[in-house]
Amino acid sequence: MKRTLDTLIRNCTAVTVNETFDIIEDAIIAIEAGRIVYVGSAAGAPEMHSRETLDAGGGLILPGLVNTHTHLPMSLFRGLADDLPLAEWLNNHIFPAEQAHIRPETIRIGTLLSVAEMLLSGTTTCCDGYFYEDAVAEAVESAGIRAILGQGVIDYPAPGVPDPSQNIAVAVDFVRKWKGRSPLIQPSIFCHSIYTCSGETLTRAKQAANAEGVRFQIHLAEAADEAQQAGLPDGVTPVIYADRLGLLDANTIAAHAVWTDAADIAILAKRRTGISHNPESNMKLASGIAPAPAQIRAGIAVGLGTDGCASNNNLDMFAEMDTAAKLHKVRAFDPTVMNAKTVIRMATVEGARAIGLDSIIGSIEPGKAADLVVLDIRKPGLIPLFHPESHIVYAVKGSDVRHVMVAGNLLVRDGRLTRLDLDDILDRANAIGEEIQLSNGQPKSQV
Amino acid sequence: MKRTLDTLIRNCTAVTVNETFDIIEDAIIAIEAGRIVYVGSAAGAPEMHSRETLDAGGGLILPGLVNTHTHLPMSLFRGLADDLPLAEWLNNHIFPAEQAHIRPETIRIGTLLSVAEMLLSGTTTCCDGYFYEDAVAEAVESAGIRAILGQGVIDYPAPGVPDPSQNIAVAVDFVRKWKGRSPLIQPSIFCHSIYTCSGETLTRAKQAANAEGVRFQIHLAEAADEAQQAGLPDGVTPVIYADRLGLLDANTIAAHAVWTDAADIAILAKRRTGISHNPESNMKLASGIAPAPAQIRAGIAVGLGTDGCASNNNLDMFAEMDTAAKLHKVRAFDPTVMNAKTVIRMATVEGARAIGLDSIIGSIEPGKAADLVVLDIRKPGLIPLFHPESHIVYAVKGSDVRHVMVAGNLLVRDGRLTRLDLDDILDRANAIGEEIQLSNGQPKSQV
Repeated sequence: MKRTLDTLIRNCTAVTVNETFDIIEDAIIAIEAGRIVYVGSAAGAPEMHSRETLDAGGGLILPGLVNTHTHLPMSLFRGLADDLPLAEWLNNHIFPAEQAHIRPETIRIGTLLSVAEMLLSGTTTCCDGYFYEDAVAEAVESAGIRAILGQGVIDYPAPGVPDPSQNIAVAVDFVRKWKGRSPLIQPSIFCHSIYTCSGETLTRAKQAANAEGVRFQIHLAEAADEAQQAGLPDGVTPVIYADRLGLLDANTIAAHAVWTDAADIAILAKRRTGISHNPESNMKLASGIAPAPAQIRAGIAVGLGTDGCASNNNLDMFAEMDTAAKLHKVRAFDPTVMNAKTVIRMATVEGARAIGLDSIIGSIEPGKAADLVVLDIRKPGLIPLFHPESHIVYAVKGSDVRHVMVAGNLLVRDGRLTRLDLDDILDRANAIGEEIQLSNGQPKSQV
Repeated sequence: MKRTLDTLIRNCTAVTVNETFDIIEDAIIAIEAGRIVYVGSAAGAPEMHSRETLDAGGGLILPGLVNTHTHLPMSLFRGLADDLPLAEWLNNHIFPAEQAHIRPETIRIGTLLSVAEMLLSGTTTCCDGYFYEDAVAEAVESAGIRAILGQGVIDYPAPGVPDPSQNIAVAVDFVRKWKGRSPLIQPSIFCHSIYTCSGETLTRAKQAANAEGVRFQIHLAEAADEAQQAGLPDGVTPVIYADRLGLLDANTIAAHAVWTDAADIAILAKRRTGISHNPESNMKLASGIAPAPAQIRAGIAVGLGTDGCASNNNLDMFAEMDTAAKLHKVRAFDPTVMNAKTVIRMATVEGARAIGLDSIIGSIEPGKAADLVVLDIRKPGLIPLFHPESHIVYAVKGSDVRHVMVAGNLLVRDGRLTRLDLDDILDRANAIGEEIQLSNGQPKSQV
């Protein structure tokens, strides 16, 4: 291998998250044209030359984390209202704030703010759904992160879609504009839910997604009363209803899937529909605890997600891993029910599978994209280190991320963003916060 | 007020956690002889002069966090074994590791490692229980953190106490050595549990604590089968048994208190016994979810704790706050059941009350000790800021801590420890990790 590569990463322990969960000490990873071309022990590696070398400082390197459910611009509403019943939170706080403050420029800043937080905490791919998704896509493209981006469809006037009768047309326009345009972005159609979209809207939106060959996203079975909210007859669960409408197949991502019984899980498994499991959002909004272990046992691709950070209130996938592992243990009264390796798979390769990107990302293997995270483990909370997978789930914080690469581009170096102007983003986000504050009449601190 | 003070802290938003939870924008805090002598708006403040001024950079300042349940030296065993049933974890991993590797020098390093992690993430007081507690106290004293330190009592051979018949004598010796010796350290007696100590041991240990005028700690009602493990007759709960033995009064701290029914809660409230609520440990070990909201409603002082970091696996009280708030919401299906202010109180003034230090610490008020934490909130995950209490619970990470003061001493400045040699601690902890690793025959990475 005498050719000159783009980058060699040396001096790291590689947590590959491959089929056998190999952990390679003193590993070397070679990258060319945005892809991994070699991973193995430095001792047995062939001689390789590269334009760039990254010394990982003895840290852990793992596949970039995959956040399977976000609403990126909602970072602007983080902490605007908490500790409230869902309906009051949505109707009295979030929806009015969206009506008053969401426009392409605020979308752009909110998106960049979220992308900054995600990159700095090790997330390299997200699966998003919101409105003005074209502005989200512009911001995401400029930031260099990988994403599936879904234009929202809802049967109410929405930001950028004042006339609900145009909701699917707007989504199709978005998809056509972004399909094949940017190597890291895949457009998608995101129907909000079965209780905010009619059966006809749901069916037409899914058919449009199929016709365009893109993925379909939906919040499904999130709260206990969803069937009632959607006016479903007795015995028809949200999953059964979605299946009857033809929404469920391998190109659909169901976010939440909290209230899924054995029959629902069997349907989702049969249709090969991916699930985004959002334990922290489901806890904070008191929605419930999804039966993720049973969903995984059924063979479903279950990824992890933070949800929008107005309902979490952060985008830190390391925190989400920790919570997922602990929550299912206490729910089942069984500490073995979801171990660290399972949770890491959910945050990487299974998340990638849930959103249909597992042939491209999710593990450190030759042929996969160079979406990588280097952790600084010389910290008081990470020494001694006996089992890397344990630390990653139970001890590592997003702030332990040192370097982040997406498609071979180093977007975080030594804990700093290389491509985004963080100070400018923070100043602009503060200004939007002031505007929101003034119209809400609530106390606000600026920094 | 023309006298010269020790320190003035300026340019901050003070989250006082006083009775009315006042939040003071553009606050100034004056410190003299380790105590707060003034807190208020800079605009209305008298002219004050100080030897030192700390510019808080527009950050939030809050009372130092109180971790009401730790086993400091167990940081050496973090991640040694996870995702296992409690008995297997304890008997096959933790107990053998303690027998083989716990000695005064490893106690010292493990303690310093934990103190470093705690200080860097905003904890200024802990309530600890372990063995060789004299070595813990030496390390804690050198670090300058505030602590209640309990010598462990258990009816088995233990590190430093090979003959269980001497367990109470050793504890009393420890208490007498440390009583009144160091202004920040209060010695205590820590009985492991009702299933590892006989009724006679428990009674004698509590009587010894009373005779010495120090606090008594015990793991109580942690796991569902504790009554059975302790051989209690039908209908006698761990709390009823502890009460019959005379263990419960205002000088006792019950750690966990997971399996407490209404009658148990009434007993604990009547006895004014403090509770250390450890949600993450209880989740990870699949012990259960403590009825903390009901315990609080009954008037009990319920503080937060991380437990030892072999069963968490971190000492980050910001993560613990986040988990506590979310866990109780989903357990009760009610997002209003434990709001951000309640959780902050648990991590500060109520924790202080649980361990009997609320006259000294827990809030930013004149007369209280200057145990303070300054958060850097110019971060992508913390902007905009609408409600400081929301960010503190749901968005702030331990890594957002910028400055930490204990009794007026700045122990963390700009995210760095001022008094401890972190590199030396990490190197020594790594060396102990190597030793543990070699004797366990498991893969180990060193950094």
